[in-house]
Amino acid sequence: MAEDKLDESGIISLIEELSQPDPALIVGIGDDAALYKFNMPDVLLTVDSLYEGVHFDLDTHSLSDVGWKAAAVNISDIAAMGGSPACALLSLAWDRAPTRIELSSLLGGLLECLSEFNCVLAGGDTCRSGSGLSLTVTVAGMPPSRGPLRRSGARPGDAIGVTGVLGDSAAGLYVLKSGSDELRGRFPGLVEAHLRPKPLVTAGEVLAATKATAAEDVSDGLARDVRNICMASGVGCVLEAGSLPVSVDTLELAGAVGMEALDWALGGGEDYALVFTGAADRFDRMLNALNDCGNPAVRIGEVTEQSDTVIIDGSGKRTDLGGTGYEHFT
Amino acid sequence: MAEDKLDESGIISLIEELSQPDPALIVGIGDDAALYKFNMPDVLLTVDSLYEGVHFDLDTHSLSDVGWKAAAVNISDIAAMGGSPACALLSLAWDRAPTRIELSSLLGGLLECLSEFNCVLAGGDTCRSGSGLSLTVTVAGMPPSRGPLRRSGARPGDAIGVTGVLGDSAAGLYVLKSGSDELRGRFPGLVEAHLRPKPLVTAGEVLAATKATAAEDVSDGLARDVRNICMASGVGCVLEAGSLPVSVDTLELAGAVGMEALDWALGGGEDYALVFTGAADRFDRMLNALNDCGNPAVRIGEVTEQSDTVIIDGSGKRTDLGGTGYEHFT
Repeated sequence: MAEDKLDESGIISLIEELSQPDPALIVGIGDDAALYKFNMPDVLLTVDSLYEGVHFDLDTHSLSDVGWKAAAVNISDIAAMGGSPACALLSLAWDRAPTRIELSSLLGGLLECLSEFNCVLAGGDTCRSGSGLSLTVTVAGMPPSRGPLRRSGARPGDAIGVTGVLGDSAAGLYVLKSGSDELRGRFPGLVEAHLRPKPLVTAGEVLAATKATAAEDVSDGLARDVRNICMASGVGCVLEAGSLPVSVDTLELAGAVGMEALDWALGGGEDYALVFTGAADRFDRMLNALNDCGNPAVRIGEVTEQSDTVIIDGSGKRTDLGGTGYEHFT
Repeated sequence: MAEDKLDESGIISLIEELSQPDPALIVGIGDDAALYKFNMPDVLLTVDSLYEGVHFDLDTHSLSDVGWKAAAVNISDIAAMGGSPACALLSLAWDRAPTRIELSSLLGGLLECLSEFNCVLAGGDTCRSGSGLSLTVTVAGMPPSRGPLRRSGARPGDAIGVTGVLGDSAAGLYVLKSGSDELRGRFPGLVEAHLRPKPLVTAGEVLAATKATAAEDVSDGLARDVRNICMASGVGCVLEAGSLPVSVDTLELAGAVGMEALDWALGGGEDYALVFTGAADRFDRMLNALNDCGNPAVRIGEVTEQSDTVIIDGSGKRTDLGGTGYEHFT
């Protein structure tokens, strides 16, 4: 089995074999480019790469998890625009020929995620990499009929909300890195949140339909992502630490290992929750609509006219949100 | 200057700064996804990655050349479908923070190529890589009104043609790898063909308009790419070695250094010429139409019913085309 290495055409054949047909996919894998028939000429496009040793390690992530995540992080970007994913391209690079089993596992996770969100694999590219495994996924999707959710639409006085939970992914990474089987057995949900994030596509669609003024997915940590919205909108914010949606598991793990759950929630990233803003007088209706579609959401703060971005804890202490969150080149 | 390193947001800001606006680009760089308004709902999509040490070396390629090539190879895929490029995404990964000058040079080459082919940079992603520099470019474009050029439409009796030249890129790579300033000074056109390939977008459009039955761009070497068409179409071919469009420079270099120009033409790859097939009784009209738009083209052989793919030289000797061309995982 270990000898069952695939060459370039073997890789492409296996990808073709595992992929699903789709009536909108007019030209699929195996030609110079794919041809996809969208249901309108306005198309959302996003791309994200995952590099071994940077975004994942194969001692904590299975190949199937890596495949899932490469799809999920892009679908989450479409969700953050209020859109619906439609098709994807995969550029796959490895520093050695993969076996059929390795590639099937990787593609299995990728296709499982794509198919859960009605997104078809339309094409791609495969080559050798300089080191390790890397995947770049492009996802194209349809914007919501009212127009996309931007980062730049938040207005002073808007409420700020989050749907999904914050910190579970960072807590799960802590468990994985600890190497502790006991922690892993005790907190399987946290590990799952890190390895198999769930993009909130329905929540994004509801946010667009209920006229959210801005939205972004929480990939680099809430603090940084909410600051992106503030910067793009030319506003500031005040968040309430006590309102952040942190799970009982994350609180329990943080307590058990002497970490701060709030640090994971603000700076951990890879939550793929959605942070959004909306007019204060319509905000309860937005939260109810999200709740009704199975995406519980909470109000976590308010947009301010001043450009400061701060968080207030239960004792009234104000902390600047700057300087937290993931940054690739420091 | 050497200290002027860019962080993630510095990289994104510089990309925003250098990019051009475009009325069809409704949401550009800096949000979760781009939104582009195509002129129809049918969209061509292609992706290709370039890895340092695999596709290029920075001792032979300038950063500007790498940027150009990353765009060009994708635009060439759109050209091979007979389409017109519209917008692009860039996923850029580096194992260290780039300086402003390095990034400007890389982006300069990329944007120069995109802009020459009316393609706007719509968005992207930047992160650290496991090693070296890598770029993944996605290009979206519009298919021709008669439908895309496929690899699968060649029929027995069709003529086979090529527009562009074969072997210049491989010959240019030979010059670069030789390290010889004398050769470089003597054959600047060959070096240019390797470093700055020109996608044949107009030629692809003409091929679609004149009803070519199949087409592909020559990226892995003519032998392999023509075999792709034959396999996809369930046919074979006979090529005439004496008809291949090989430049005087390539012949001269091959003679001077004791190499075979035919090997470069058949197996070198990265020519980004277009190989195509068309009905024999309309073929002269296709060649004339290509010629009239500044893309000289020649007939190089014929599609056969038997699945053999062979090339015949002047003495009548037949050689199987199998086993040549670039393969990533061997």
